[in-house]
Parts: sequence; structure tokens; C-alpha cells
Amino acid sequence: MARGRRPGASGTREAILAAAREQFGEKGYDGATIRGIARQAGVDPALVHHYFGAKQQIFVAAMRLPYDPGELLRSVMADTTDDGARAENAIRALLEAWDRPESRAAMLALIRTAVTQERAATMVRGFITDAVTHRAVESGGVTPMRAGLLASQLIGLLVLRYVIAVEPVASAAHDEIVAEYAPALRAVLASAGGGRVRGAADAVG
Amino acid sequence: MARGRRPGASGTREAILAAAREQFGEKGYDGATIRGIARQAGVDPALVHHYFGAKQQIFVAAMRLPYDPGELLRSVMADTTDDGARAENAIRALLEAWDRPESRAAMLALIRTAVTQERAATMVRGFITDAVTHRAVESGGVTPMRAGLLASQLIGLLVLRYVIAVEPVASAAHDEIVAEYAPALRAVLASAGGGRVRGAADAVG
Repeated sequence: MARGRRPGASGTREAILAAAREQFGEKGYDGATIRGIARQAGVDPALVHHYFGAKQQIFVAAMRLPYDPGELLRSVMADTTDDGARAENAIRALLEAWDRPESRAAMLALIRTAVTQERAATMVRGFITDAVTHRAVESGGVTPMRAGLLASQLIGLLVLRYVIAVEPVASAAHDEIVAEYAPALRAVLASAGGGRVRGAADAVG
Repeated sequence: MARGRRPGASGTREAILAAAREQFGEKGYDGATIRGIARQAGVDPALVHHYFGAKQQIFVAAMRLPYDPGELLRSVMADTTDDGARAENAIRALLEAWDRPESRAAMLALIRTAVTQERAATMVRGFITDAVTHRAVESGGVTPMRAGLLASQLIGLLVLRYVIAVEPVASAAHDEIVAEYAPALRAVLASAGGGRVRGAADAVG
């Protein structure tokens, strides 16, 4: 993702990512700032922004995620307005990204940390809320509740296929999972098209 | 779940459960046997069966799960043949069981162990396959793949609501989650009604 290639650039990038991991771990996703990450890495905030972009992208790079889930969601929503196609594209993109062994290692590390350390759970919560929920609301007209349920379906698939590895889901071909699971994601997307976008506060009960 | 109440019964129960936790942890769900649990607890296998029933129930008691997911699934499938009602009942039962703080502590402990220890993942994988997937196939005519995708949706909801606690899913009232999520579960159940029950081997790709 580095746009500049100059001597020492890769060392600087690594220093920024190490600082980012510490800041996200300490302050959570919401509490961490580009300014704070830059200060800890001993560089100018403009350089952090130049290398990585916004906070979301820094998190993705720092956690070695194979892609930005918010960006994936945006592109899935933008490619077509057909909810069935959106559902299929979201599942296929997810499987293609996570099937790579190096992605899987990064995901397992993140999940392990998130479920064993309360601070890491706070960090992941902030990221999902910001990158996934807000993005789905903005780009797809999906309510925050629906965006959360969509995330539930995708995270559940990741856990069953890669973490617990329950058959036949663990070894099934992408095409089969897409064909069998897409109607379920479509059901969440479809009823969300009614324009009923409500704030999180409404749902607190 | 003890059917007998006699002096020392509760001590015997606890000894059996402690032996079960060790055997499941060491040998996995599939490898553990009632005979092996009885031997380690120093009791007769018939007594283990008398107190707890089958291996599934021993696992549920040993892991302090609030209910037997396989039994829940069986009862949801038996109560009605309407897929929409089945979907609603499954979500409602799940939320009611896990909303209790003591259940939540047991679940978090199990999830934490499963994602951090490969042996525990094997244990949970065996239990889900036996108790949930096989049960769904037997009692609902659901294919193993669909049963796995159903489990993905429910496990994803548990992770998002209780483990990562993403709003508005984390604080939403049961009625709202049931209303918004049931169509998604129904989509998995409904297409499974076609009688196309296939073995796990077919899906290995």
C-alpha cells in the first residue's frame, strides 16, 4: 500500500505499524489517533496518512488483515443494486481472502486476542462498528442492526469454516457455499431496502 | 439432571464431570467414551449413564452449557413444520439461554479455550458435528451443509452480541433480533426442505 519507494521507507512503514498496534491495543480503536500513532513512531502525522490513509486502513495494515472489510462492503454494495448478487459477491470475496494461509494466520491471531483480552475485544468492536456497520449504513442504506446481522453471518461462517473447522462447511468449494448461503444474506439485505434506517439508540432495549 | 438423590451423589456427579472434562480435553469429543470417563472417575459406566444419559449430555453438563444445543434443535424442529416459526423459535431460545450471566461465562470460557487450544477446537468440532449437525439432519431433513450454515448464523450472532458486543446487536431486545434475523435463518431452512440430503463427502472440494 506504500505509495512512496525511497531508502528507509519500509523501515518507517514498519515502525508506524508497530506503533499502531501498540496504540490500538492500549487505547482501543476509537481512542487511537493518527497523531498519537505518529508521535509514538517519531514521524509526522502527514507521513502516516501518506503511507496508509485513514485510521481504518492503518488498522487493516497493522493487524495484517487480507483486506479492508469496510472497503469490501463498499465495493460489494456499489457493484450492483441486486441484493442476491450482493450477497453472493460478499461471500465469495470473504472466502477468497481468507482461504490464503497467511490471511488465516492473521485472522486466528486477531480472533484469539479478541476473545481472550477485554482490551482487544474493545479494539475489534470499535473497528467493526466504524469500518463495517457505518460503511454498510452509508453505502447500502442498510440499518445498523441489519449491518450487524450481516456481520454476524459472515463472522459465523469464518468461525465455523476456519476456526472450529466443522465439516462439510470447512472443506466445501466456494461455489457451493455461495449457492447455499447467499439466500440467507440476501434475506438480511433485502428487507433492509425499505429505507428504514434507524440509529443504534432506538435498538437499545 | 441427577435422577438419584442419595448421600454422596453430588460428590460423585462432580467427580464424573471433572473426569469428563479431562477426557474430552485429552481425547477430543469423538475419542472420549463413557467407559473411559467412568474409569477415570472410579465409578461404574452404568452410573455415568444413570446420572447424565448419553455422551452429548455429559459434554453439556461438563462444559456447564445452559442447554443441549442438539436437544434445542430437535425441539425447535419437532414443535412445528413451519420454517419461519422454526427460525424464530431457534433465535429466541438461543437468546434466552445465553442472556443469563452464568451461561455467558460458561460460553466465553468454552470459546476462549476453543480458539486458543487446538485440542479444544477438536473437542468443540466433534460436539457440534455430533450434537448439532447430525441432529439437524435427523430431525429436520436439513442437509449437513445447511445445518452447518445454520450453526454459522447462530454462532455468529453469539460472537457479535456477547463476545465482541457490537451495537446495536449487543443491546437489542430479543423481539427485535428475532424479527430482523429470522428471515435469514428461514432462508437456510426453507431451501433445505427439498429433501436433498447429501453426505459430507459430497461437499468436500
